[in-house]
Amino acid sequence: MTAAPAPAPQDAVTVVGIGAEGWPGVPEASRAVLRAADVVFGGPRQLDLLPPECAAVRVPWPSPLRPALPGLLAAHDGRTRVVLASGDPMFYGIGRTLTALLGPDAVRVLPHPSSVAHACARLGWAREDVDVVSVVGRPLARIAAALHPRRRLLVLGAGPGTPAEVAALLRARGFGPSRLRVLEQLGGPRERTSSEATADAWDAPDADPLHIVAVECRRAPGAPRLGAVPGLPDEAYAHDGQLTKRYPRAVTLAALAPAPGE
Amino acid sequence: MTAAPAPAPQDAVTVVGIGAEGWPGVPEASRAVLRAADVVFGGPRQLDLLPPECAAVRVPWPSPLRPALPGLLAAHDGRTRVVLASGDPMFYGIGRTLTALLGPDAVRVLPHPSSVAHACARLGWAREDVDVVSVVGRPLARIAAALHPRRRLLVLGAGPGTPAEVAALLRARGFGPSRLRVLEQLGGPRERTSSEATADAWDAPDADPLHIVAVECRRAPGAPRLGAVPGLPDEAYAHDGQLTKRYPRAVTLAALAPAPGE
Repeated sequence: MTAAPAPAPQDAVTVVGIGAEGWPGVPEASRAVLRAADVVFGGPRQLDLLPPECAAVRVPWPSPLRPALPGLLAAHDGRTRVVLASGDPMFYGIGRTLTALLGPDAVRVLPHPSSVAHACARLGWAREDVDVVSVVGRPLARIAAALHPRRRLLVLGAGPGTPAEVAALLRARGFGPSRLRVLEQLGGPRERTSSEATADAWDAPDADPLHIVAVECRRAPGAPRLGAVPGLPDEAYAHDGQLTKRYPRAVTLAALAPAPGE
Repeated sequence: MTAAPAPAPQDAVTVVGIGAEGWPGVPEASRAVLRAADVVFGGPRQLDLLPPECAAVRVPWPSPLRPALPGLLAAHDGRTRVVLASGDPMFYGIGRTLTALLGPDAVRVLPHPSSVAHACARLGWAREDVDVVSVVGRPLARIAAALHPRRRLLVLGAGPGTPAEVAALLRARGFGPSRLRVLEQLGGPRERTSSEATADAWDAPDADPLHIVAVECRRAPGAPRLGAVPGLPDEAYAHDGQLTKRYPRAVTLAALAPAPGE
């Protein structure tokens, strides 16, 4: 039953996380991997962070990446292949794509602090108490389910307009008094808190594309109280009167008993 | 409305994360902070990871730590004070204690990959899809709410006996076929997967105190289906017949509309 960790196979790919601070933030073990690489794959922004002492061939990711990935890796088979990832490779990152493609045993991952870890460090927020919502390639409405008084959210922004969109959603959902802060370029030399205001008062300019919106949820006086369990008040829905009423909805969901992901 | 980040005040405390791999895994920016410190506080195990070039006075944490903390920090006021933390200081760590005590502006935190980040790297699991449950100083029964088919859990162990306790809880809850792996000393030179089996077949010896139990949830055939919403089947409760029935329970909770933390 005891299993020693199997060494990664010869043809494994190593994924190395690198932060906005670049080479100074890369620990020695990861530096050694990057110096010994024959080929380094990564986004152009990540590849530009490597110093000249990393003499590997640099292959920038094409766009779209997914369909090209198997061919790109195969073209360099038999060489020491390293993939540069932004922040933690297993947190909304390329690590998951690669392990899905090659299997976990063929991918070695060297973690790095994520942008969320940097945000928690900056804000003094405990990671275990924070809800994280990514709106990258996902609908902004995902935030709605996380809105409850006194909760803290970190929203991974999808572009310069995300903070204004988050503020508008908060106002529409009765959370206009919530405090928003835009944290840009977390962990890097250009890190800054670019804007800070309530959702009600929000008129900040567009953000740096690399940002997180930190939200401290406050419900507006008189806004409907929406719990985290089925059976929301009927007023929470846009309807024409043809609505299954609150308590039958709660009972139906109890009977269906959905599990997470269902 | 635009706010540049305020520099940390003169009397700030800096918290530096360090992993099981010790000094080789500490990036240069964190090393510089540790070399420049007058006093370094930390657990004896963390302090032992520092090389001789860190000439600061080393102050091991007493036990219990909380009541002694304000006095210890005050005794070294006016000197450059650094706190060594295990892994990510803001993830179930000392960072939260210090920011609660001194305020977030008086604490500067340099993050480090957490044991959970290392576990995800090793397993090829995406962090955003994993439920993390700490049983350190918390009841083991907290795991029960996270048991749903095909979910992946990382349980932060509270001691050598945690894996056997987790296996027993899984069996009792109808999740005996779940696959368990014990990941010890994550990120360090003594990292290993010490045990691997289903909860049903579990008879592994005690684990290293520093471990995570990775669980792939599988429900036993015939075990009751418990969803993630109120209104569990009446059979899910130990009762003598004097039980508010399933659907009134669901309706009552819909009316109460509890939010997270309530």
